[in-house]
Amino acid sequence: MPKNSKAATVAEIAAMAGVSSATVSRVLNHKGIVKGDTYDRVVAAVHELGGSFSERTEVEPSGGLLIFNLPSLDNPFYSEIVRGAKTSATRHGYHLLINEEHINRNTMPRVLKLLHKTRAVGMVTTNHISPDILQKLASTVALVQCCEYDEELDLPYVSIDDLSASKNIVEHLLAMGRRRIAFISGPARYKYARHRLQGYRTALQEAGLEEDPRLIVQLPEISYDLSISSAMQLLNADNPPDAFFTASDVYAAAVVRAAYLAGYRVPQDLMVAGFDNIEFSSMAIPSITTVSQPRTQLGFMACELLLEKIMDPDIPNKKIVLETELIVRESTAI
Amino acid sequence: MPKNSKAATVAEIAAMAGVSSATVSRVLNHKGIVKGDTYDRVVAAVHELGGSFSERTEVEPSGGLLIFNLPSLDNPFYSEIVRGAKTSATRHGYHLLINEEHINRNTMPRVLKLLHKTRAVGMVTTNHISPDILQKLASTVALVQCCEYDEELDLPYVSIDDLSASKNIVEHLLAMGRRRIAFISGPARYKYARHRLQGYRTALQEAGLEEDPRLIVQLPEISYDLSISSAMQLLNADNPPDAFFTASDVYAAAVVRAAYLAGYRVPQDLMVAGFDNIEFSSMAIPSITTVSQPRTQLGFMACELLLEKIMDPDIPNKKIVLETELIVRESTAI
Repeated sequence: MPKNSKAATVAEIAAMAGVSSATVSRVLNHKGIVKGDTYDRVVAAVHELGGSFSERTEVEPSGGLLIFNLPSLDNPFYSEIVRGAKTSATRHGYHLLINEEHINRNTMPRVLKLLHKTRAVGMVTTNHISPDILQKLASTVALVQCCEYDEELDLPYVSIDDLSASKNIVEHLLAMGRRRIAFISGPARYKYARHRLQGYRTALQEAGLEEDPRLIVQLPEISYDLSISSAMQLLNADNPPDAFFTASDVYAAAVVRAAYLAGYRVPQDLMVAGFDNIEFSSMAIPSITTVSQPRTQLGFMACELLLEKIMDPDIPNKKIVLETELIVRESTAI
Repeated sequence: MPKNSKAATVAEIAAMAGVSSATVSRVLNHKGIVKGDTYDRVVAAVHELGGSFSERTEVEPSGGLLIFNLPSLDNPFYSEIVRGAKTSATRHGYHLLINEEHINRNTMPRVLKLLHKTRAVGMVTTNHISPDILQKLASTVALVQCCEYDEELDLPYVSIDDLSASKNIVEHLLAMGRRRIAFISGPARYKYARHRLQGYRTALQEAGLEEDPRLIVQLPEISYDLSISSAMQLLNADNPPDAFFTASDVYAAAVVRAAYLAGYRVPQDLMVAGFDNIEFSSMAIPSITTVSQPRTQLGFMACELLLEKIMDPDIPNKKIVLETELIVRESTAI
């Protein structure tokens, strides 16, 4: 700590109070969790070191770099998630940097070098990683999964209930009188794609409707162009759909464009619902019905879990599922 | 270097060849720049150390972390720029991580700590930073400006010619018969905003048209919502514009929405042109005429300049201006 700084480091406070750094951090940042004598000792140490509890105690960045891994910066879906994570990191005196990488067998050596080189103490992952790679990563650095997670491994995550969110939005389309609802999604290796398909199916089943496999499209990636072609094919075929539910707003935007090209009016001839509530969905004409994920909270919680894990590697792995919200807009409103 | 690795480090090659690391890196990565005896010695050293020149010589990440600073992840404009920079960094054996931060007096202490903590050797900045802060940053770490740059300071940058790009797109609107062209842009502290306004003015002047100050809007930030209100005001006023040129595709999307709300047909009643060619501009209905920036190349060149600067801090500061391209789409085509 620089001599002139007013801030004490967590380590100094811990040493003076005779408690662990983890405990100090809990007292400073999760007020109310630590009580009694331990709490009093930490507060006394903060005062002793020139700090104050009347206002937010400033904590020197404690040496921790956290890496937030994104598969791609193209998808604006992630910006608010990162913002949430950064808020948590900053609050605890940690730095957070973003790495854009598909983590797989090929890129893993580079990721490990990066962790080593930057002395990162934790990582949040957001995309699908094969279980063996994920396991190896988690044995190298504290790790929390955000959004996408592995259903088999015992690792911490923060995500949403894709199944009920999808069921909910398909039920909305059914309530609007639609009966031939097409579904566009991503590859089945993604948890989100499997669960959203399941939600779609459950809604149809409960409504007593037969599933038409020709209306289910699984694209190899979230691609606007591929999605336009798929939608065009369905719209130009016999017995076209009267609505689309898509597993991403990017797909939904493509369907709106395909409808425009094929001469369908949205929502009259064709209703369209997406997922994620990215900015584009409210900017499109017509604006697009979608599912809003609590993105800031997803990122914030993921980082909080990560810091807990860093401070106490032995705590059980938490698995948190957050609520979503259906946002009805012009593309499904008549 | 690990005993079993086939890759030699730049330092090892340099030591064996009796040249600087900078020279080794130039030979390996900018084939053709270094010639003659020096080149031969580096190649010999690579072979001696078990490497090969027949295929891409693998260089161990040399210990360098580069930080690419973005003001916000919200603007999808930056994703390709980062991709270009990352391609350059990886090619030279460097790591590149993204920091989301508005660098100013308040955040500067944290940025300096971050640089220190992560031992970053270089930084690319992309947004407006006040000259004193920028100068201080450049004295701490190798620095290159990308997109936004300070016109007064002697620091390296890679950017575009905003003036001629803007003049060009306004001339396109004039050629389409438009005479009351409104202009929406950002705050004048941004180089891009000043230059694009200048391009707009030059085009009007050369066409012999009077400038109407009521048609020029400078918003405090790139905000979709603010932009809708401004466009609505102009469209509902007496003597409304017959076209909009906006300094960002986000503004242009807002104008298209405002036109829709106010009952104007785009492009018949109102033409709209944006800037940046973000993905949204081609997804919108109608698709939006815009200026394409060579984004991958902007990022790539910025990182190349940065690595040159890291390898040889004494080379003169290069200032590179790249070409843009006018993309005509439905919003200005009748």
